[in-house]
Amino acid sequence: MRLIAFKNQAGAPTLGARIGNDVVDLTARGLPATLDGLLRDPGGLDAARAAADAPGERLALAGLALLPPLQQPAKAFAIGLNYVDHAAESNFAPPAHPVLFQRFPSSWVAHGQAIERPRVSVQFDYEAELVAVIGKGGRYIPKERALEHVAGYSLFNEGSIRDYQFRSNQWLWGKNFDRSGGFGPEFVTADELPPGAAGLRIQCRLNGQVMQDANTRDMIFDVATLVAACSEGMALQPGDMIITGTPSGVGLARKPPVWLKPGDVCEIEVEGVGVLRNPVVDEA
Amino acid sequence: MRLIAFKNQAGAPTLGARIGNDVVDLTARGLPATLDGLLRDPGGLDAARAAADAPGERLALAGLALLPPLQQPAKAFAIGLNYVDHAAESNFAPPAHPVLFQRFPSSWVAHGQAIERPRVSVQFDYEAELVAVIGKGGRYIPKERALEHVAGYSLFNEGSIRDYQFRSNQWLWGKNFDRSGGFGPEFVTADELPPGAAGLRIQCRLNGQVMQDANTRDMIFDVATLVAACSEGMALQPGDMIITGTPSGVGLARKPPVWLKPGDVCEIEVEGVGVLRNPVVDEA
Repeated sequence: MRLIAFKNQAGAPTLGARIGNDVVDLTARGLPATLDGLLRDPGGLDAARAAADAPGERLALAGLALLPPLQQPAKAFAIGLNYVDHAAESNFAPPAHPVLFQRFPSSWVAHGQAIERPRVSVQFDYEAELVAVIGKGGRYIPKERALEHVAGYSLFNEGSIRDYQFRSNQWLWGKNFDRSGGFGPEFVTADELPPGAAGLRIQCRLNGQVMQDANTRDMIFDVATLVAACSEGMALQPGDMIITGTPSGVGLARKPPVWLKPGDVCEIEVEGVGVLRNPVVDEA
Repeated sequence: MRLIAFKNQAGAPTLGARIGNDVVDLTARGLPATLDGLLRDPGGLDAARAAADAPGERLALAGLALLPPLQQPAKAFAIGLNYVDHAAESNFAPPAHPVLFQRFPSSWVAHGQAIERPRVSVQFDYEAELVAVIGKGGRYIPKERALEHVAGYSLFNEGSIRDYQFRSNQWLWGKNFDRSGGFGPEFVTADELPPGAAGLRIQCRLNGQVMQDANTRDMIFDVATLVAACSEGMALQPGDMIITGTPSGVGLARKPPVWLKPGDVCEIEVEGVGVLRNPVVDEA
């Protein structure tokens, strides 16, 4: 099942199931208006499947204004240096433990919306990433059971303001500029993908040119390991996100560096998960 | 004015004004149930003052179950290495820019509640910190106007699990164990303190023994500078928090190290702001 968040005709957040080019409005059929609301109900995904399969009206996907799949997760972990080649190009040693930092919801926009180059920096970089979304919460989740806690997956463009990221040894600042990242286009339930979403091609394309091209099996810490780690001391909640890190090929590491600029179009693709597309604009 | 968050007799979040040993239930007088709700209304603090001054019933402070002053801020910035002596004892150079990381609301408890030593580590450390709470939002706030955006102050015990903090170069993990930090006891409006809450003695006492003893004027980046920095690229919202960093004397830097253990009582005090007291227990 593939779920999207969008605004209904009144502008209110709405949850839908995408079937080809059509969308079933699940909220109109009595389900929650948001994905995190759906995930908080242990039977939510099953109820969504039943509602999506029932006969009735469908909307055209093309006419909908998408929202990010999650708009207010309790925790959005971003994982640094999780592909060996990217750690090397960034001049860091491969980490011995997962590298965790935070991404605020104010830092991301939906598929199709513009990501913004801020007025204080030109060092605006892309990062293709797979997102794992927690369905069932828990603390100290053993790795062997961790994938049972993942409801599904999505895509993230972890837009980064590199000079701010490296202003100090903590990366939060340059990773959280308002509307600097993209999230979407949709949420894909785990049963649609291989276990842990492993073995999938992951790409970033900038104006059609391939900039990053790797495979999710190349993660240093796989999805199960990340879920176990993020729950070690911190209870995961339904709707928490783990943004699983980016492979090599980022703009910072190129000679000369490649920075996102107004007019660019950036696409993130993971095989079977979808394509996340965001144009780039200057901050207003 | 001094505001507290507490549970009313039905267990619902409630906002009160403390006057000596009494509390006026502001929520019962028509005001929001939370401080961030109050701060989102530009006239909220004035309305709270008027409601607190009106005649009527008062509750006894002693009987109330406190909540943290803020329970779900959009952003809670923690500032690292913001006192020269603490940077030195931690073997870091004084930073050239503010060091920003995130503290999740799940990582803190109210005044009087127990902070928890986790089952996976004994390296549980205290950190006395002043908290600045944003009243008026904004992006790219100039330092000269920054204090106009601060509604008031509170206290934080930035409980840290040191081995997890240093598992990688990003500190989030060891700074966010569930219920590892204390926040409170109350919110003190800015007009009750010197500009920027500067020049105030700040202490941590462990079982009555002074472990940290410094002055908020010793911050490398003062409150105005921190507000300006945190708004540079990221729009601040009413109720956002800046946890402003700790002075020297933490347990990690002592020889031998001093770790919090069950039965300990940790107190954080900033002159004029109050005393935050938390006992220590082992995770259940």
